[in-house]
Amino acid sequence: MDCSQLTNTAKVSVGYKKDGAVQNQKDISVEEKERLVILTNEQPWKPWQRSRFWVKECLVKVRCVMGSLMEMEWYCFAALGVLTAFLSFLMDLSVEKLLRAHQWLFSQLEGHSLLQFLSWTLYPVSLCTLSTTFSQSVSPFSAGSGVPEVRTMLSGVDMPHYLSLTNLFAKYVGLICTLAAGRTVFLGKVGPFVHLSTMVGGYLNRLCTVLRGEREEKTEGAMLVVAAAVGVASCFGAPVSGVLFSVEVMCSHFALRDYCPCFFAAACGALTFRMLSVWSSDQETLQALFQTNFSDDLPFYPVEILVFTILGILCGACSCVYLFCHRWILQFIKTNKILVKMLSTEKALYSAILVFLLASLTFPLSAGQYMASNLTMKQLLSSLLENRQWTSTAKNASAVLQPQLCPWSEWCPSGNPCLTLGFFLVMKLWMLVLACTLPLPAGYFMPVFIYGAALGRLVGEALAYVSLNGIYSDQDKNQINPGGYALAGAAAFSGAVTHTLSPALLALELTGQSTHATPILLATLVANALARSGQRPSFYDALSISKKLPHLPSLLLVCPKLFSVALGKVLNSTGPVLEWAAGPMEVQQVLNTSTQTQIPVVETLGSKILLGTINRSDLQTFLFHNHNMILKKQLGDICPIQPVSVQISPDTTVQEAHRVLSVLCGQSLFVTEKGRLCGVVTWPEMKRMMEDLTNDL
Amino acid sequence: MDCSQLTNTAKVSVGYKKDGAVQNQKDISVEEKERLVILTNEQPWKPWQRSRFWVKECLVKVRCVMGSLMEMEWYCFAALGVLTAFLSFLMDLSVEKLLRAHQWLFSQLEGHSLLQFLSWTLYPVSLCTLSTTFSQSVSPFSAGSGVPEVRTMLSGVDMPHYLSLTNLFAKYVGLICTLAAGRTVFLGKVGPFVHLSTMVGGYLNRLCTVLRGEREEKTEGAMLVVAAAVGVASCFGAPVSGVLFSVEVMCSHFALRDYCPCFFAAACGALTFRMLSVWSSDQETLQALFQTNFSDDLPFYPVEILVFTILGILCGACSCVYLFCHRWILQFIKTNKILVKMLSTEKALYSAILVFLLASLTFPLSAGQYMASNLTMKQLLSSLLENRQWTSTAKNASAVLQPQLCPWSEWCPSGNPCLTLGFFLVMKLWMLVLACTLPLPAGYFMPVFIYGAALGRLVGEALAYVSLNGIYSDQDKNQINPGGYALAGAAAFSGAVTHTLSPALLALELTGQSTHATPILLATLVANALARSGQRPSFYDALSISKKLPHLPSLLLVCPKLFSVALGKVLNSTGPVLEWAAGPMEVQQVLNTSTQTQIPVVETLGSKILLGTINRSDLQTFLFHNHNMILKKQLGDICPIQPVSVQISPDTTVQEAHRVLSVLCGQSLFVTEKGRLCGVVTWPEMKRMMEDLTNDL
Repeated sequence: MDCSQLTNTAKVSVGYKKDGAVQNQKDISVEEKERLVILTNEQPWKPWQRSRFWVKECLVKVRCVMGSLMEMEWYCFAALGVLTAFLSFLMDLSVEKLLRAHQWLFSQLEGHSLLQFLSWTLYPVSLCTLSTTFSQSVSPFSAGSGVPEVRTMLSGVDMPHYLSLTNLFAKYVGLICTLAAGRTVFLGKVGPFVHLSTMVGGYLNRLCTVLRGEREEKTEGAMLVVAAAVGVASCFGAPVSGVLFSVEVMCSHFALRDYCPCFFAAACGALTFRMLSVWSSDQETLQALFQTNFSDDLPFYPVEILVFTILGILCGACSCVYLFCHRWILQFIKTNKILVKMLSTEKALYSAILVFLLASLTFPLSAGQYMASNLTMKQLLSSLLENRQWTSTAKNASAVLQPQLCPWSEWCPSGNPCLTLGFFLVMKLWMLVLACTLPLPAGYFMPVFIYGAALGRLVGEALAYVSLNGIYSDQDKNQINPGGYALAGAAAFSGAVTHTLSPALLALELTGQSTHATPILLATLVANALARSGQRPSFYDALSISKKLPHLPSLLLVCPKLFSVALGKVLNSTGPVLEWAAGPMEVQQVLNTSTQTQIPVVETLGSKILLGTINRSDLQTFLFHNHNMILKKQLGDICPIQPVSVQISPDTTVQEAHRVLSVLCGQSLFVTEKGRLCGVVTWPEMKRMMEDLTNDL
Repeated sequence: MDCSQLTNTAKVSVGYKKDGAVQNQKDISVEEKERLVILTNEQPWKPWQRSRFWVKECLVKVRCVMGSLMEMEWYCFAALGVLTAFLSFLMDLSVEKLLRAHQWLFSQLEGHSLLQFLSWTLYPVSLCTLSTTFSQSVSPFSAGSGVPEVRTMLSGVDMPHYLSLTNLFAKYVGLICTLAAGRTVFLGKVGPFVHLSTMVGGYLNRLCTVLRGEREEKTEGAMLVVAAAVGVASCFGAPVSGVLFSVEVMCSHFALRDYCPCFFAAACGALTFRMLSVWSSDQETLQALFQTNFSDDLPFYPVEILVFTILGILCGACSCVYLFCHRWILQFIKTNKILVKMLSTEKALYSAILVFLLASLTFPLSAGQYMASNLTMKQLLSSLLENRQWTSTAKNASAVLQPQLCPWSEWCPSGNPCLTLGFFLVMKLWMLVLACTLPLPAGYFMPVFIYGAALGRLVGEALAYVSLNGIYSDQDKNQINPGGYALAGAAAFSGAVTHTLSPALLALELTGQSTHATPILLATLVANALARSGQRPSFYDALSISKKLPHLPSLLLVCPKLFSVALGKVLNSTGPVLEWAAGPMEVQQVLNTSTQTQIPVVETLGSKILLGTINRSDLQTFLFHNHNMILKKQLGDICPIQPVSVQISPDTTVQEAHRVLSVLCGQSLFVTEKGRLCGVVTWPEMKRMMEDLTNDL
């Protein structure tokens, strides 16, 4: 229905509107009258025919006006950003309430250590058990971070279960429970949010198809890429790092046509998220999530660049240890018989036991006091990014007297923050590795980011301590800022663990601290170089491999034969094929057996020389035509044969076929040898090939 | 030569080193001795054989150690960053000296208006004439910005003239002269610097090939992408926007394998550039190039987001006017007979006349005083980004008394900065359009950036004036910051003119001002949306079209038939082809006529069924073999035939063939129909097709 038609029908509706009755029907031409009758009589058993018709016409007019301003998909991109930011804000709000409730309960029981212990441990245990039970019973695909699955979907593989509405619901509720268990299980939000955003994107894509009045659904590709950017942007209010993240999670190429939509949707998401924060709290303006106030005059001495480089090396080395432990535990829970049995039947029990263990260890009246476990994750990060030195402040007795007011004092129970930081780092390493095995919706980025911040802070505090008693002992001069090291450490460690560079920009956008841009980028690059050396898998790669997801770049790391294996060796038969001179019988048979929208046509079934493809709808027309006519015609006489633009040879490697398929955005790729059709590569076929080749892993 | 071999030869050299004479030659095995004799006797007429040998071995050992640490190309990326930053720093230094000389001359002639006028006009006239003459005589390809050519090269088309050493030299010297004419011609540095960086990159790529001991040169693709990022990064010390720029100038897809190299080289470049600035001046630490000091507490009221959006719309509209004028003048100088004649023979005269005109208009004692033409481009930008309000400061008499100290006072000769800003905007629009026609190396980004800043400042000052006398009349409250509007205007206008989003991030990195991230991004997005509506060409597109560069995305804007035209209609014949059973005669003939490294092989010349390709070197082996043997064998028996992975059909559109060719990084793409070879698409062939199709433009 084009716009001129729409305007005609709109005229009708305006006519109705003006007088409220059917007075000036004479204005309406006979033709339009007929249309109106047809439209209103379509479903005569439904009530309010006239009103329904009027609303429908109004909607069509609105669509027409919207469509003339910009294309419909841009509205969907904007809606994606706004909706995701709204979900993110709502989640933050609920989690904060739940965390405050825990805090209140704990403080009310002051003096009763046992009750305090029970409240400290059982609250997160019940929340995590609820999260596990709920998410597993509603949709088992909602467990974990979701980033490995999003990466797989972005490479082109279709995974409809991961984009369902039930999954969205399960993940959202489960994630709120997980985050509310906050300090004890120490898990984050961003990974699942990227996944949530892709689910919202998937739905909006379908809506967009309906709005444009198209029958066939457009591929979700662009929407998923945009959604990945929106996920990060609306979780942190950081649009540019969202776009960079989206570039990084792509398989081999980033299409430039997705660049502007990514920025647009990410900006909408970030703006909405920050505006909601402004409206809900007493903030006067849009601020970074973890706004810091580093000195602008002399943020660091040029010679400190060297220390930042060393910090990068340290973060890289630590990330290797962390990733090794992570891979080991993933292997362990897959091979240990007790755990395998437990995780297949009693997931909730496993969650409960593990969370109880973690919570007991973080109990603030025992070991927890040396891990600053009284602080929530947000407070942890804020305290680590403080710019004043803890070592020098700890000497100031007056500050220590008011522990409630200064979060940093949580880090100095013994007077020496370096010891607390060291204990925190040692304990959290294995606790975090354990927490990653919990079968509930949870993000693993933020914990890693905080861990890196602690690592950087330790280096910064040590340097500050040395400089206070050594080189720069002049008190009047600008001092070393350990907060800058914490920021660089956070970016470097999280970048090294995930093998990405976007955390460097995220660190800047999260804190609004542009003074440290160069050292942060440098530390992240160095840490990444170390972590990537020797073709070790990243955190997401390890999860992809463990879950056997059909994500080629991950699989290549553990199965190098994928680099060289030729397509011809693993290709199945071609599936249904029609010959040029096919009659109605053959066509009917192919239509019954195949579900493809395009059927390959060959010269003869003997020669198999590929001519092109015929649309399914054309085949149905052919059958209809043949049914009516007495004179039988052949397929090629009636149906238009569309040429096949790109063909690959059976000697192509699987890796190259994957790349061609993902870059050309095609649904199927024909394999020919000397013009003869040997097979068809589609995404399901590619998935099967990858599964076959990596079966022995 | 692998590492074990290298170590052996290194042993030899160590032997020499230890005693300084040939004493312990007994340690050297007989085999090594022979090698040594061969090595030293290679060119017996050259002097210092032993020393040369020793140096050579040392170099080989260094290469081996470097190669074990990381791959050789990473050193090249680092070198690219460092070298470009060094060039950039040196250029800044020379330009500053030349600008100061002009300033000194002008101030020495105080009181003699005529002499002052002559010094003001003739200095830039002579510099620009020198720039034109020098660059045109050394290398005519060095004129202009170079970004359109870089975009074309990045799409895959080979343009060796634009990467030559003479071009590098001509562009560098010419650019220094252009920039030294500063205030009067109002041209920038970044575009040519991207081009300079690609030339350095091209050379380093060849060096890298030599260092790795490979014979065949690797394609320059990756190095050029990295160089584009480095160009921006080392010009402004802004690594992340450099990488984003590099993503944006790509043709259709950005390959992820170039992502880390881009970041690495850009970080090296930015770090070197900033470190050099620190070492050369009395700066204490690394700072942004145009460091601003906006208030962190309340950078803007949330309601100002609306004003930023309106600013975006304004910038978008102005960019359309500017781009229209630019396209008009490009067309005009191509059609006006006098100009065509002048520009073909008397380029220097044209430059001289035009620069004299521009300089006369900016003479500070006449109209120039209302355009703040006493300020250099750096001072212009710094003054526009000031955070205090000019309208309120102008009322403060004490500040006006010391005009030398405050650059802003240049903007208020009449007491009202809005009038000056308005006059500046009106005049600079057409002066800038004229300046773009100068046939000398010059960048067009920075002037546009400053123009946008002035536009934003005007809006900011107007708002500040209104708010002072209206809504927010409370003096104690935080005031409107016009500097923020200038920053947003700069990003939005330059983004709209170039159809890119990276200026938004560049604005942040240039000023270190993260508080305004969201409004800047918003304004840039809105301005871009307006500028891109209606498929209008961007600034670079217009240049590409005017210069008839084979850059497909630009050509598609003016020649929509390129979208639909089938490859088969414009394809030439296949060129030399061999049949499977070819004899030495045919092979010799093909070797003589073709320069391709891979020759297609068909079953028979009659059927033309494509079997694969044979390497040129294998053909030479075949000829050698046949020459020695009495029993003649056929080609297919001896030479290995490599399969062709991807084939396209003649029905493919030119656009699609272009995309496949650029994504697959191949040098040639075979066109087949039912298995029969119809043609070969290479980059030169693609270039010819594009030229043929757009001949009538």
